[in-house]
Amino acid sequence: MRLVAFLSDFGFSVYVGVVKGVILSLCPSTRIVDLTHAVTPFAVREGAWYLLTSYSYFPEGTIFLAVVDPGVGGPRQPLAIRTQRYYFVGPDNGLLFPAAEEDGIEEVVALWRHRGASRTFEARDVFAPAVARLAKGEPLASLGHPTTIEVRLRFHRQGREGEVVVIDSFGNVITNLPPLPGAGYYQLRSATGIEMTLPFYPTYAEAPREKLFLTTGSAGTLEIALREGRAADLLPLPPGTIVELVATNPLP
Amino acid sequence: MRLVAFLSDFGFSVYVGVVKGVILSLCPSTRIVDLTHAVTPFAVREGAWYLLTSYSYFPEGTIFLAVVDPGVGGPRQPLAIRTQRYYFVGPDNGLLFPAAEEDGIEEVVALWRHRGASRTFEARDVFAPAVARLAKGEPLASLGHPTTIEVRLRFHRQGREGEVVVIDSFGNVITNLPPLPGAGYYQLRSATGIEMTLPFYPTYAEAPREKLFLTTGSAGTLEIALREGRAADLLPLPPGTIVELVATNPLP
Amino acid sequence: MRLVAFLSDFGFSVYVGVVKGVILSLCPSTRIVDLTHAVTPFAVREGAWYLLTSYSYFPEGTIFLAVVDPGVGGPRQPLAIRTQRYYFVGPDNGLLFPAAEEDGIEEVVALWRHRGASRTFEARDVFAPAVARLAKGEPLASLGHPTTIEVRLRFHRQGREGEVVVIDSFGNVITNLPPLPGAGYYQLRSATGIEMTLPFYPTYAEAPREKLFLTTGSAGTLEIALREGRAADLLPLPPGTIVELVATNPLP
Repeated sequence: MRLVAFLSDFGFSVYVGVVKGVILSLCPSTRIVDLTHAVTPFAVREGAWYLLTSYSYFPEGTIFLAVVDPGVGGPRQPLAIRTQRYYFVGPDNGLLFPAAEEDGIEEVVALWRHRGASRTFEARDVFAPAVARLAKGEPLASLGHPTTIEVRLRFHRQGREGEVVVIDSFGNVITNLPPLPGAGYYQLRSATGIEMTLPFYPTYAEAPREKLFLTTGSAGTLEIALREGRAADLLPLPPGTIVELVATNPLP
Repeated sequence: MRLVAFLSDFGFSVYVGVVKGVILSLCPSTRIVDLTHAVTPFAVREGAWYLLTSYSYFPEGTIFLAVVDPGVGGPRQPLAIRTQRYYFVGPDNGLLFPAAEEDGIEEVVALWRHRGASRTFEARDVFAPAVARLAKGEPLASLGHPTTIEVRLRFHRQGREGEVVVIDSFGNVITNLPPLPGAGYYQLRSATGIEMTLPFYPTYAEAPREKLFLTTGSAGTLEIALREGRAADLLPLPPGTIVELVATNPLP
Repeated sequence: MRLVAFLSDFGFSVYVGVVKGVILSLCPSTRIVDLTHAVTPFAVREGAWYLLTSYSYFPEGTIFLAVVDPGVGGPRQPLAIRTQRYYFVGPDNGLLFPAAEEDGIEEVVALWRHRGASRTFEARDVFAPAVARLAKGEPLASLGHPTTIEVRLRFHRQGREGEVVVIDSFGNVITNLPPLPGAGYYQLRSATGIEMTLPFYPTYAEAPREKLFLTTGSAGTLEIALREGRAADLLPLPPGTIVELVATNPLP
């Protein structure tokens, strides 16, 4: 019995249900878990971050179906990837790459499209059948022709610079910067010109209310938070914004 | 092991979870898949469209529990329907009819209500127990008395006219008009007086940004879309609006 | 095969998926059902009400994982509770107490935290592993040290007074007041100074449109509703507001 973890930007729409129906029609014993469907529509980088920071919590052998696919029906490759411990199925637009690369890519195929596949809903007609066949134990090589990944998405990390990767469901502004060494004040600057000097707290509960602060988020990276509030509503730092840690030593 | 596919306008509220709890209490081996719970509250036609265009992707024998039920607790019949390949359980308000009719209705019962059933949450107290008994293999006839379906909802389709059936989670304006013959410009007019001349593209990715266009949606019908945007936010065409394809031949 | 029912204020974010991944990694045969993840962020009382009014619909032996936890990482205890028929796992902030007390508390432990557990995502690192070990059949006593529950949250109910407990997904204003004796007009007053004289209807469908009315909600308590509309949008009665039934006898 294989586990399928499903991530998309479909919201909890009928598209999610239909994809599950197709998988269960072809392989009735599959277990399907929603990783999330609340990725911002068309936000490939956001989906890639969620996949990168989540996949390793799933059992070995899990098949990740990930669909954030503004290029659906176009020339981008539909991929299935076998890594050291997992499978990844989805579009070749960067979405799968960071997670697959981290786990160690072993084999990649471009999925065959059957005649009559919808060009606006390939999750149902191309990706779901491939997932079902993997779940049934068919080898990756039977699903398509060997290929290489074209879009090798990487998150910006250089010296003291990183990027805002996602705004989470609590409104936390999550970056890919490494955790801070401890208590104190730290200065950040965004490429868009915002400067902030903020205190670090190890937990939300220790921070004062109504003041932005820094903490270490669930992925082990730096995040800007607001106790029982939405930091993102106070800070115009959308995903993709470059941020730099200017002063790395605690100030008194 | 029977599969139950569950559609409602409950959002991802506790009502969804409680219905699942009831089904699993009565028939622990049932597998329950969410078809969608994001139907606009009380929008029976929208729910009916989602069910109609989704059911056939599920395995034969699937039990569809569908609840969009502004008349809950009132005189409308609580139904269980056996069709050629599936079962449908829900209110007699049109929600189940298009899907059930398409698959071929074979047997219909009006569910018995037990004393003490809530009159504001029949999904929990009337529909879920019926679903569980079907999942356990009990015959339809044991769940209620034979009846006929009263509300025979049909989507408007006549000549070149159809209707806006749903706005999907991406903001696509989906109609029940048939697909267009190919590239070119087409003229549409709504019964509310909106006229549009729009190009057709077979995929979202081929369309220019920030301009409305026509494409063939996932259900094989005509939809108005906006590349990586929400067409519905630019077009006051709510579900139910009658639309007519005025010029059916591609213009130069 | 144990059933886990999962309630949180995570929305349908990746946090929900990751928690499931951890449970399934440690106990692959677990079945996980979402009770709801739409609890208002940080709203412990709202989560407690949903858990209290839902738990008994689940099969005996169900493990409830409930996480609405503004104090995550802080000194509040991470709990696992065995009651007469169920298990409850979550923070000691009142969330679990009303349901656990109603079912009859038999044993309580404070969960051990392992070194390296995140202080901002204990659902993943502390609660999910405990749930998985219960699902595998390990005894409660092996998960932590015996303790007593500190936060004994109770909903306000005294004489004719109660409180608004939640606004549900349909915008119904749900109180913990007992059901009304029957048809007629009833007078309510909120501690915030709002007075209302409203008719009672046993079902939504019997009420006139566009007028607020009283009915018996799905939990068997008094709710203020609006037929096919959102009562909460017309009434500034947020959860926690004290309400009093002033005139308990039907008026002519």
